[in-house]
Amino acid sequence: MAKRQLRLGAFMRPVSIHTGAWRYPGAWRDANFNFPRLRSLAQTLERGKFDAFFMADHLAVLNMPVEALKRSHTVTSFEPFTLLSALAVSTERLGLIATASTTFDAPYHIARRFASLDHLSGGRAGWNIVTTSNPDAALNFGLEEHMEHGERYHRAREFYDVVTGLWDSFADDAFIRDAESGVFFDPAKMHVLGHKGEHLSVRGPLNIARPVQGWPVIVQAGASDAGRQLAAETAEVIFGAQGTLASAQEFYADVKGRMEKLGRDRDHMKILPGAFVVVGDTLEEAKRKRALLDSLVHDESAIASLSIALGTDASRFDPDGPLPEIPDTNASKSGRERVIALAQREALTVRQLAQRLGGYGGLAMVGTPATIADTMQEWLEEGGSDGFNVMFPYLPGGLEDFVEKVVPELQRRGIFRREYEGRTLRENLGLPRPTNRFFA
Amino acid sequence: MAKRQLRLGAFMRPVSIHTGAWRYPGAWRDANFNFPRLRSLAQTLERGKFDAFFMADHLAVLNMPVEALKRSHTVTSFEPFTLLSALAVSTERLGLIATASTTFDAPYHIARRFASLDHLSGGRAGWNIVTTSNPDAALNFGLEEHMEHGERYHRAREFYDVVTGLWDSFADDAFIRDAESGVFFDPAKMHVLGHKGEHLSVRGPLNIARPVQGWPVIVQAGASDAGRQLAAETAEVIFGAQGTLASAQEFYADVKGRMEKLGRDRDHMKILPGAFVVVGDTLEEAKRKRALLDSLVHDESAIASLSIALGTDASRFDPDGPLPEIPDTNASKSGRERVIALAQREALTVRQLAQRLGGYGGLAMVGTPATIADTMQEWLEEGGSDGFNVMFPYLPGGLEDFVEKVVPELQRRGIFRREYEGRTLRENLGLPRPTNRFFA
Repeated sequence: MAKRQLRLGAFMRPVSIHTGAWRYPGAWRDANFNFPRLRSLAQTLERGKFDAFFMADHLAVLNMPVEALKRSHTVTSFEPFTLLSALAVSTERLGLIATASTTFDAPYHIARRFASLDHLSGGRAGWNIVTTSNPDAALNFGLEEHMEHGERYHRAREFYDVVTGLWDSFADDAFIRDAESGVFFDPAKMHVLGHKGEHLSVRGPLNIARPVQGWPVIVQAGASDAGRQLAAETAEVIFGAQGTLASAQEFYADVKGRMEKLGRDRDHMKILPGAFVVVGDTLEEAKRKRALLDSLVHDESAIASLSIALGTDASRFDPDGPLPEIPDTNASKSGRERVIALAQREALTVRQLAQRLGGYGGLAMVGTPATIADTMQEWLEEGGSDGFNVMFPYLPGGLEDFVEKVVPELQRRGIFRREYEGRTLRENLGLPRPTNRFFA
Repeated sequence: MAKRQLRLGAFMRPVSIHTGAWRYPGAWRDANFNFPRLRSLAQTLERGKFDAFFMADHLAVLNMPVEALKRSHTVTSFEPFTLLSALAVSTERLGLIATASTTFDAPYHIARRFASLDHLSGGRAGWNIVTTSNPDAALNFGLEEHMEHGERYHRAREFYDVVTGLWDSFADDAFIRDAESGVFFDPAKMHVLGHKGEHLSVRGPLNIARPVQGWPVIVQAGASDAGRQLAAETAEVIFGAQGTLASAQEFYADVKGRMEKLGRDRDHMKILPGAFVVVGDTLEEAKRKRALLDSLVHDESAIASLSIALGTDASRFDPDGPLPEIPDTNASKSGRERVIALAQREALTVRQLAQRLGGYGGLAMVGTPATIADTMQEWLEEGGSDGFNVMFPYLPGGLEDFVEKVVPELQRRGIFRREYEGRTLRENLGLPRPTNRFFA
């Protein structure tokens, strides 16, 4: 029997999520905002047979204290559609996933842009649906008060219905282009949506042919109850945030169970947790790389992250001493205990602990190609995930290490492709092409 | 003294504005919506040293009777930002002008996308500001009633202020990227806009570095009094619609006069009327080409256009006879008289007249390279324009004829560049780079 296959996305905005990445020796300091470098990174991902280039997005300069902000390489970035369209002509098989908000944009625009990106790329577009929780974004879009969480999700569900309905405006075979008779398309194969709902009113039809993939691949990241339910109803890829195999298994079983209750095939969704991967030829080398990277996180960013995690002001601790006893606070108990356990397990000073959290605090795989492949395979085979969204520690080195060392190890084990299966993102992910709801 | 220089834009959405273009022998029937073909057309324009690829836009399927609609090659098109970003990496010097609406989009999105396109293209972006007069667009964006003309223009003016203010969020030298100190940018060189106006409330800053050109080139097309005034205040390129040298001279003198009253240098705006150009080796060949092209316009589209122009139902006339006497109606008197004069001058039957209007009814230059160059030079030297937005009769043939035959004639006369003057659209158009209003 064929082995279960890993799917690999690459989380590329910022190109490295790690706060110290741009300072790492040999790193491209401007990689987050330099097109020739981003093109080179995308081409390396394609050489490594990655499923997709995943672009997060923010609709504001991130809200952080100025001492942290001025050290952040996230402050200037390309807008997703312009960048991914440029990358579409620089690559041939790599999926192109853009984040777009259902709270601060119009469904006609979103439907049109994703359809256009899908046509430009020959069927490689994906839409990461977000409801945008950042209240600073609201202030950039004329809203004094941010929309409440539940209402954002209701609007998101209706928004999804409208966008997918607009994508179905034309049958796949609507365009005849018969020069002899002069008929360009068959109007019987055009559908006027005429949507009037609680949050949205959109007539249609969309002024672009149905996407190559029928619909671009639907991606989501919500972990709340409302987010899980929306994902079970609509998502084809989930960007997970689970930090341990046990929590990932709970999430995986819950969301796939919700899908089945709704009558969806559980294989029609791929759950890909984010994984920060640092590759060394030995375990010690990998750990040294991470320690060096963490040491490049400035104290201001670091201590702020630690204070948030502990729910107490960490700036009054001795940075070079061990973590003192922490009293109970209002902060999440499990989160606090995880941080305390981490400090004890790795014997970290307060500064080292703070830099770890200020760099990247989520799921990390720090080791040799074999130990990283072991972990990935375990999650894949034990019901933790269908693959990962890989985050690279610094660029281009961290990505090159992954493609040159980890990918071949995964291929040797028979759990990752040696060649792309198809031409579209759906074909590579093993997802079906949606039927047109108006022209079956 | 150096001769005044023509500026040439190419009107490329639809790739040919002529209704019959896609049926012309040898025409690419799907050129409007086929990326490799659009890339080839853009590269031909660059070979011809055109200033810019100009992309009109519509936020709806165009409203026309279904018998005309089904014959229209405008019904499916790429979205401007995705297409132009893809073309940015396929060309090196060609300007990339996208139309974007101030009525149905948010200034934060618009500022960000144009900044992103400008960075991707190395400073070749232009924004064609439109207020969107099509009431069908409103229905695709949740509005039952279309915004009134005057209010649309007030909003457009405020929208422009916000977008240009957002572009100035960072000083040109804000990004230091000093790995040693860990400072990525200087926060003293970031400005928070904090705009609260009549129509818009936008905090900022924009999450992207200042565009390469400072601001992308500002383009407009409004011809009403409000449109002319907005253009005089803000535009750097005007897409004109004047059909005769006399009306073009009136428009040119009026708008440049308004500029001077506002203290702007009249050379800091280029007025480029749209011109439909059909090239033949002889005058007869050019006329034959146009007659063939017009004959490909279907009666349904043709007669509807004629009825509108005359203000009377033209379907009751003998299509193969001459135009009968037309009584006075509510339609524009000057427009009606122009149509009647055209029928008499060229001895057109009712059908031929209708097909002419249904194909393309605006300013046309149908002749040899020499006669076309004569007309262009006359307009340039007699205060009618600073150049043209060229419309091609069919693709790729009509564009190739222009680049291979008309461009060399213009170059021989010393009124058109042999090489691009600079790397950015502003440099090629001879427009100054705007200073940053917050960081002079």
